[in-house]
Amino acid sequence: MSRIDRRALIGAAGLALAGPTLGGSAHAADAPAPKPAEAKDVTRTLARWVVNARFEDLPEAVRREATRTFLNWVGVAIGGSHHETLDVAVSALAPFSGPPQAGLFGRTERFDIMNAAFLNGVSSHIFDYDDTHLKTVIHPAGPVASAILAYAEMHPVSGRDFLDALVLGIETECRIGNAVYPNHYDVGWHITGTAGVFGAAAAAGKLMGLTEQQMVFALGLAASQPVGLRESFGSMNKSFNPGRAATNGLFAAILAAKGFTSSDGMLEAKRGWTNTVSTKQDYREITEGLGTRYESLLNTYKPFACGIVMHPAIDAAIQLRDEEHLKPEQIARVDLKVHPLVLELTGKTAPQAGLEGKFSIYHAVAVALVEGAAGEKQFSDRAVRDPVVVALRDKVVPVVTPGIAAAQVDMTVTLADGRTLHRRIEHAIGSVERPMSDAALERKFTDLADGVLPAAQARRVMSLCWSLDTLKDVGDVIRAGVAQA
Amino acid sequence: MSRIDRRALIGAAGLALAGPTLGGSAHAADAPAPKPAEAKDVTRTLARWVVNARFEDLPEAVRREATRTFLNWVGVAIGGSHHETLDVAVSALAPFSGPPQAGLFGRTERFDIMNAAFLNGVSSHIFDYDDTHLKTVIHPAGPVASAILAYAEMHPVSGRDFLDALVLGIETECRIGNAVYPNHYDVGWHITGTAGVFGAAAAAGKLMGLTEQQMVFALGLAASQPVGLRESFGSMNKSFNPGRAATNGLFAAILAAKGFTSSDGMLEAKRGWTNTVSTKQDYREITEGLGTRYESLLNTYKPFACGIVMHPAIDAAIQLRDEEHLKPEQIARVDLKVHPLVLELTGKTAPQAGLEGKFSIYHAVAVALVEGAAGEKQFSDRAVRDPVVVALRDKVVPVVTPGIAAAQVDMTVTLADGRTLHRRIEHAIGSVERPMSDAALERKFTDLADGVLPAAQARRVMSLCWSLDTLKDVGDVIRAGVAQA
Repeated sequence: MSRIDRRALIGAAGLALAGPTLGGSAHAADAPAPKPAEAKDVTRTLARWVVNARFEDLPEAVRREATRTFLNWVGVAIGGSHHETLDVAVSALAPFSGPPQAGLFGRTERFDIMNAAFLNGVSSHIFDYDDTHLKTVIHPAGPVASAILAYAEMHPVSGRDFLDALVLGIETECRIGNAVYPNHYDVGWHITGTAGVFGAAAAAGKLMGLTEQQMVFALGLAASQPVGLRESFGSMNKSFNPGRAATNGLFAAILAAKGFTSSDGMLEAKRGWTNTVSTKQDYREITEGLGTRYESLLNTYKPFACGIVMHPAIDAAIQLRDEEHLKPEQIARVDLKVHPLVLELTGKTAPQAGLEGKFSIYHAVAVALVEGAAGEKQFSDRAVRDPVVVALRDKVVPVVTPGIAAAQVDMTVTLADGRTLHRRIEHAIGSVERPMSDAALERKFTDLADGVLPAAQARRVMSLCWSLDTLKDVGDVIRAGVAQA
Repeated sequence: MSRIDRRALIGAAGLALAGPTLGGSAHAADAPAPKPAEAKDVTRTLARWVVNARFEDLPEAVRREATRTFLNWVGVAIGGSHHETLDVAVSALAPFSGPPQAGLFGRTERFDIMNAAFLNGVSSHIFDYDDTHLKTVIHPAGPVASAILAYAEMHPVSGRDFLDALVLGIETECRIGNAVYPNHYDVGWHITGTAGVFGAAAAAGKLMGLTEQQMVFALGLAASQPVGLRESFGSMNKSFNPGRAATNGLFAAILAAKGFTSSDGMLEAKRGWTNTVSTKQDYREITEGLGTRYESLLNTYKPFACGIVMHPAIDAAIQLRDEEHLKPEQIARVDLKVHPLVLELTGKTAPQAGLEGKFSIYHAVAVALVEGAAGEKQFSDRAVRDPVVVALRDKVVPVVTPGIAAAQVDMTVTLADGRTLHRRIEHAIGSVERPMSDAALERKFTDLADGVLPAAQARRVMSLCWSLDTLKDVGDVIRAGVAQA
């Protein structure tokens, strides 16, 4: 399939859909935003909070969600670790890498921490299957976790400190993203890479123990290194972006820690970041409610390895299949009432390659009915060529229907014996309203690790992730997650 | 002096001034620009030219100017090599550096080529004394030369190939800069770091022998990594920008060479670089006249280590001093007719520290009359506290005068014996109209290297620079330019 087709799904479907339609704006203030010219000390206020926030202050729900975020991220990083994208990057960078300070999930090579942060960050975004902050369509974990896990392997860090830094990094990037979304994203920036640099810098700087002024400068150096344009979606360049954001944030923190200076107001100044990269600046999103509202709680995980636009239909298909023990040969027809974006973005009727399947509502529903899942394996070449799936996809009839929101679907399955089964989805599994269960996250992880790590090793990595807050040395996670040489 | 003050000069004075006022627009097309939506194959056209251009095709004047650019760049990189900015960066990055593949001018440390490119790039911009493409206020050499010299030390490159790559890199960044200037700069981007990434990627990719498609992707990966905001001017973050641009471009080329992909139209696509970072897109600046008009010929070198706004007055002062053998005690009063920007940007009457002197037209004229120069030494703490200079600066009387352009000055020196001397400057030395002579470039180089390298060593480095087109291995330049351990 062509590059442009893939862009249509991963980009527009997986992302543009999310904002106001799926993500809501629970925390957006209602009053008009102050004029940018009145902004003062935005960077410093954020830096001060990051420097002073303690693990003890984090609500239990925030710790728990951050742990789930981490487990999901480790799973996708393992899953992508042998994709061609990563093979190419590893072979390109190996000749320039520094000391073997940090490992790569699912692989045997070791790199200096800046290259390791890049490579794990790339790996975790290859399938576009990582976590999503729907309010901004930022994938929060990639830039932050990649940076601090690499750092933690070099300088041992406790699980509590790591979780604290992870939460602070996610807050930093998502709040900065909120301040400029959607204008910043609409104009062309890949917000995961542009806001992600701040998250990586804040989190890494937190672990390094930066002073407030050093943190201000780390954020300034981060502001100087935004990464990623939406035009690159559908190419390797897309997963490049969270990886490079991780490295850039780490680079910023490392320099600031030694006394490298920047400006005091790189976020809010007239020729600072928000004014340069966006026509919208709402600084309240950055500075209000620090320590009381947490963007981490809005993080979501994809149960299905494709754009969010198809998730309601896949969810309905799997529910009916499982409840009714449906066999493909029983099914005569599948009628779907869908939002217009479903056909606009995923209207491919006869996909020939696995990646094309991600742009076909016909394939997605058929494979979900046949296999009861929609992970990476269900979007493989094998899956889209399976004669049973191919036969069934021709029986899928999606119809754009007024009144059906993007988060919804209305499915009627007509059986060969004349019976009909009906399912309406209001919010698909994986949404903020119906989050994936811990058990579902484990199944996703296991599925991603299958073929990369032995099952027992994958279970051990999961177990370490779940017990993150009690680990003495978070480096144990990556040491457990590399391939055995 | 404060950070904000320094920003006022280095940023606004040294840069904003330059565009339409000083730089002219000799090559700007007169017809209205085509609508961005009509743009096609901009990235590919540029990539194809870079891949196919040969040293033999370069006009002699272009080779010569590129050689002068290189010599000037090596001089400023040596000059900045022991500034605190570089000390901090070296100590921060040393623990993560890869193999000792490449050296740093004026220092003994060795780094992997990506870190070496960063550090030499930082060093060369610390004094804001490097080359300037006045049409865009890009400092072209920093990102490009830093990247390819580091590469050349690892993979031996002939002087001809190096010069070819240097010219192609400068063309790439300046043409892309032309396409978006001034809007892109006005909104807040440090154009040296944003356009510079492309120059570094193109030049490094040329030396690596990328195919056309690989070069398209290298430019795409470069587009994903713009560096630098104007808000950082006055801090170490300013010289960070050309350094990081060098690394990012090199990083892009190294990945593309191994098959890492990007989009085909990262410059011109709807959500590509020019549309995302600028409200102006004139693609003719990128694709027209490739191989026939050269932006390299518009490159200029600063004879004085301060913002361009003061150059006409300094030039006049040195001319009168040298021609009339003036002694400070002879001078009763110095009247200056100046453009409004001179007082707006450099109106500091009593500077206390060296850097403050760069923002004082009073100091600049006085020290030029006393010492006959305005290099880094004339903007030192020593110089601004020299009682003779201090006494003379109080006799300098600048008056904003209608009809005096920013490139001009009108100076009248009244002597103690009642005589008056007059000098009017239309274009200061160092402008495109009155370029620095080779001998003046050598004096500047010698002055910068003084105190860093022994005089004989500095002469040898200069000699290698002048004979660049005959060198068998350009690595000889950096090997000759490092400090002896």
